[in-house]
Amino acid sequence: MRAVIFDGQLHLKSEIPAPEPPPGWALIRVKKAGICGTDLEIIRGYKGFRGVLGHEFCGIVEQCDDLGWNGKRVVGEINVGCGKCTFCKGNMERHCADRMALGIRGLNGCLADYCILPVKNLRKIPDSLKDDRAVFMEPLSAACRILEQLRLEGSEKVLVLGDGRLGILCAWVLATVSQDVTIVGHHSGKLLKGKWGTVKAKKGPEKLKGGDADIVVEATGSWKGLNDAIFLCRPRGTIVQKSTLALKEAIDLTPLVINELTLLGSRCGSFDAGLKMLESFPGMPLERLISGTYCMEDALLAFQRAEERDSLKILIDMSI
Amino acid sequence: MRAVIFDGQLHLKSEIPAPEPPPGWALIRVKKAGICGTDLEIIRGYKGFRGVLGHEFCGIVEQCDDLGWNGKRVVGEINVGCGKCTFCKGNMERHCADRMALGIRGLNGCLADYCILPVKNLRKIPDSLKDDRAVFMEPLSAACRILEQLRLEGSEKVLVLGDGRLGILCAWVLATVSQDVTIVGHHSGKLLKGKWGTVKAKKGPEKLKGGDADIVVEATGSWKGLNDAIFLCRPRGTIVQKSTLALKEAIDLTPLVINELTLLGSRCGSFDAGLKMLESFPGMPLERLISGTYCMEDALLAFQRAEERDSLKILIDMSI
Repeated sequence: MRAVIFDGQLHLKSEIPAPEPPPGWALIRVKKAGICGTDLEIIRGYKGFRGVLGHEFCGIVEQCDDLGWNGKRVVGEINVGCGKCTFCKGNMERHCADRMALGIRGLNGCLADYCILPVKNLRKIPDSLKDDRAVFMEPLSAACRILEQLRLEGSEKVLVLGDGRLGILCAWVLATVSQDVTIVGHHSGKLLKGKWGTVKAKKGPEKLKGGDADIVVEATGSWKGLNDAIFLCRPRGTIVQKSTLALKEAIDLTPLVINELTLLGSRCGSFDAGLKMLESFPGMPLERLISGTYCMEDALLAFQRAEERDSLKILIDMSI
Repeated sequence: MRAVIFDGQLHLKSEIPAPEPPPGWALIRVKKAGICGTDLEIIRGYKGFRGVLGHEFCGIVEQCDDLGWNGKRVVGEINVGCGKCTFCKGNMERHCADRMALGIRGLNGCLADYCILPVKNLRKIPDSLKDDRAVFMEPLSAACRILEQLRLEGSEKVLVLGDGRLGILCAWVLATVSQDVTIVGHHSGKLLKGKWGTVKAKKGPEKLKGGDADIVVEATGSWKGLNDAIFLCRPRGTIVQKSTLALKEAIDLTPLVINELTLLGSRCGSFDAGLKMLESFPGMPLERLISGTYCMEDALLAFQRAEERDSLKILIDMSI
């Protein structure tokens, strides 16, 4: 099969053997896969991952010992726990110390013709949900995770720093509860795409007033974003930290203590929440975030395009 | 009057005019004052404060237009807000952007024969509470602040990093609710003093198991402590950040996101909570934390002693 492989360098290889699903796992033929910021971070050294990249996909189950799954169109949660620890038993595989994660940690990913996942990670895609929307399930669910962590009243002033795909998704998800959500970024084109419903968009954060937001979501993909978030958040407000980065950087956390801020690390979300979100808000314009769809042969070009500052989501379509 | 002054250098001056209380303020004759880690940080450049140091004291009201206060033995909350902003109106003067803070920001402190504070900042000291305990009201209330921010069940595994005075006070306060509190530090003598009731003490954190604590209080006075706290805290656990420091340092916050930790900045507390704590737990052995009491003439020696690694609380007694 074809696969996008990172072994210190990025390659497209065409004669990789397809993975073989162990018992309880499914072999999935990937239809579409997305390139995520985490993939770009891995190429820069994050987590030291080597293997097939990719963790955002939709596909068709081709082989599974649970026959009811065969032929089903699915998305899949990316964390695979040990199954034995307290986190796994408490339905928190994503915090298992020995977990694998699709295309990120110990498990080949979905930027390939085939990938494998445990059946329990799979979610059937409703017929009404097109591939171009379903393929957003992983980042959309990560955005939905914020609503599981924070109880919003609806009247909070929310700033989302970062006009990339994750920032925009976070803003849209938060706007399903809060009436005052603003995306803050530097790219006019992306800011324009971020406007949906009541969601506002502003250039910044340079000209914004400090200490004025109840909640600041940091999704810039840069530690500078955290400094900005600390500046923008009101005393006793909450910063939701979404960016994970390979680099360490010096940050002055003293204002976090003085202003008694809460800094909340936020990561993957449950796909059930993501699917429910799209059921409740079928008008959420996910397709708008697709900056380009590439064939597998052009996968390296697709990665180049994903690195460009004006791009949002880049997809690979295995069928073209 | 005599006063300990920082003007870029630390001085003891003896002919400073006593401060004059504006309407609504009280002139307080200081009986005892404590040297705090923040005072030592100010000398290293924190906050750029210049003036009379000191924000921990007990004293006697000598002059006040509200005559009922004259002669009363008092402690005093250290933040003085503008009185007009939403924070001040919401009883959160300590978050007012234009606030003064005794001996820290725009207001001369209590390492002097006299200091002034608004009457509403004062709390009468019950007769049963000796000066050597009352003088701990500021750091004790800062420790109590954690109980206002976190709702503990009692079964949580709590680690307090830092065997200094603030760390020990935090451990004692948390142990009034939680059954499993351990102070972690490097100084055998201080760890020994930290043991009270169910509170345990361990050398470390080097040999401690990672990801094992539900709550980690960071009170080491060093940013390395935050790195340790991130390592020691279980996924979805909470780190309470108490240290404020003049320095910036590179910290890898990625595990905070991956493990979805909550980092909670925690600062001053209400003196009402501190007074209530001592009323409920009269056996809390605050006096044990006094490493030395100095006369005002020896104030600079007292500061030297406070810098030594084995010292806990150093007091200045204005009457000796």
